[in-house]
Amino acid sequence: MSLLTIGTVAFDAIETPFGKTDKIIGGAATYISLSASFFTKNVGLVSVVGGDFPEQTINMFKDKKIDVTGLEIQKENKTFFWSGKYHTDMNTRDTIDTQLNVLATFNPIVPQNWKNADFLMLGNLMPKLQLDIIKQMSTRPKLIVMDTMNFWMETAADDLAKTIAEVDVLTINDAEARQLANEYSLVKAAQKILSMGPKYLIIKKGEHGALLFNKDQVFFAPALPLEEVFDPTGAGDTFAGGFIGYLAETRDISFDNMKRAVIFGSAMASFCVEKFGTQRLEELTQDEVDNRIQEFINLVQFDISLVNE
Amino acid sequence: MSLLTIGTVAFDAIETPFGKTDKIIGGAATYISLSASFFTKNVGLVSVVGGDFPEQTINMFKDKKIDVTGLEIQKENKTFFWSGKYHTDMNTRDTIDTQLNVLATFNPIVPQNWKNADFLMLGNLMPKLQLDIIKQMSTRPKLIVMDTMNFWMETAADDLAKTIAEVDVLTINDAEARQLANEYSLVKAAQKILSMGPKYLIIKKGEHGALLFNKDQVFFAPALPLEEVFDPTGAGDTFAGGFIGYLAETRDISFDNMKRAVIFGSAMASFCVEKFGTQRLEELTQDEVDNRIQEFINLVQFDISLVNE
Repeated sequence: MSLLTIGTVAFDAIETPFGKTDKIIGGAATYISLSASFFTKNVGLVSVVGGDFPEQTINMFKDKKIDVTGLEIQKENKTFFWSGKYHTDMNTRDTIDTQLNVLATFNPIVPQNWKNADFLMLGNLMPKLQLDIIKQMSTRPKLIVMDTMNFWMETAADDLAKTIAEVDVLTINDAEARQLANEYSLVKAAQKILSMGPKYLIIKKGEHGALLFNKDQVFFAPALPLEEVFDPTGAGDTFAGGFIGYLAETRDISFDNMKRAVIFGSAMASFCVEKFGTQRLEELTQDEVDNRIQEFINLVQFDISLVNE
Repeated sequence: MSLLTIGTVAFDAIETPFGKTDKIIGGAATYISLSASFFTKNVGLVSVVGGDFPEQTINMFKDKKIDVTGLEIQKENKTFFWSGKYHTDMNTRDTIDTQLNVLATFNPIVPQNWKNADFLMLGNLMPKLQLDIIKQMSTRPKLIVMDTMNFWMETAADDLAKTIAEVDVLTINDAEARQLANEYSLVKAAQKILSMGPKYLIIKKGEHGALLFNKDQVFFAPALPLEEVFDPTGAGDTFAGGFIGYLAETRDISFDNMKRAVIFGSAMASFCVEKFGTQRLEELTQDEVDNRIQEFINLVQFDISLVNE
């Protein structure tokens, strides 16, 4: 099925305890569409870049069968740039520099042939723009997944609430879930957030895994214990891309299939962090993904027969 | 099979965001033996208390079929006392007061009829005393599990290393694993710690679950997402008690059975934190435990068939 994704396509400069990069390709929609394209070959991208953006990367998107019709190129302007430095624990980072550039005036337009996409992934972006994309769709997608962050909770709470009310699945991290719900307990926070509109909530806990909630059920996927987390940038977006890419390809949005999608998303994220930027995702093979899924199975599988069942 | 446990039996005074207690019954061996006694009725306790310790609690141990022959009562002295206050996140706490009392001169003696116990649980205590207990055993137990903490890494590193080298399973928390191995990556830390002697390592991550490592395998058990964690005191000891109690009762120390034991231990810990002190453990029923195990199964169970397998 068709999957439309919107979000940033960017330059990142990253410093981790393991090294430092110059400008490399980043952005939420980059990670989402690359990750999703591993599962489904009908992915469309809506974003904006400047004249400084390498044609080579646009060709890489095309090679991965990502439709870049919706990727606006502002020749006279510069691509969005973010620079950050991670602490030892890799769970916290400082932003060193943010240059909005093309993003400052971004007015996303859904191409005509993507207005009836079956799946819609709203990468982290100003909530008003995310809502605008939903309104541009000619038919309501079967599933809308939305990612957001604490910055919008602090600066655009009303728009955020309106947008959240329109989506099916919200993905945020644990600190953001606590902030959005004003509840320390994640279980209580989840129920409060589900009452804001979404039928499903995914709470991303980084190295501590991810929780999938609906009103009655909860599913937990661990993060794979890795020898090294080299660069966590894009892990959340890669997770989301794997999640919705798997759902779009299997055409099944039951809770049981969402569990599988969470595991595939977690597997994709576990690759993402092994190298700087999108490098690991670009070179990924089916065998590698299958082996990693098997590692997840081995990691959590146990066999208890309850006497009374 | 017979299970001998050693550790503190204490008075605790606890403050959490949910309330405050006066002196209540606590101590590692209290939680361990109570939790283990749910699974196996052949538990012996080696510890020390003062003349101020309530006979009622000793009778409660006896009701749970815990053999208190090894519980020394120093009539002229006072029971070990610890007082602490938890922060909002419940993962960190400040010690307000520690009164060693009887513990200052504790010289544990294994009763004659417990010297050939099949399973030995060394609760957190001065490593020299833990090692002394191992030496008092007339036959080497089938399995020795040891808990310890950062305090001994800082003050008794040599004794700790000697004791760790003699045990089969070491249980510590994630910060302690990093400290003991001097490695930030838990995967690397685990391999380093396993090279110090133990065949198995359990890294307890509190609300983020627990990891079981041997040289070739890793298993992860989540913590159950709870609405409220009321009082985390004793959760790690309750986990250890459930773990070794289940192993002792099933007489099976394979990795597959250790996975089950980790899940049972996690289930017991999830009850422990629901009320202050040992209250919840004392009143626990088989149905409640079965239902909770089912919740763990629902929480992590997924069904992915890999095409190439």
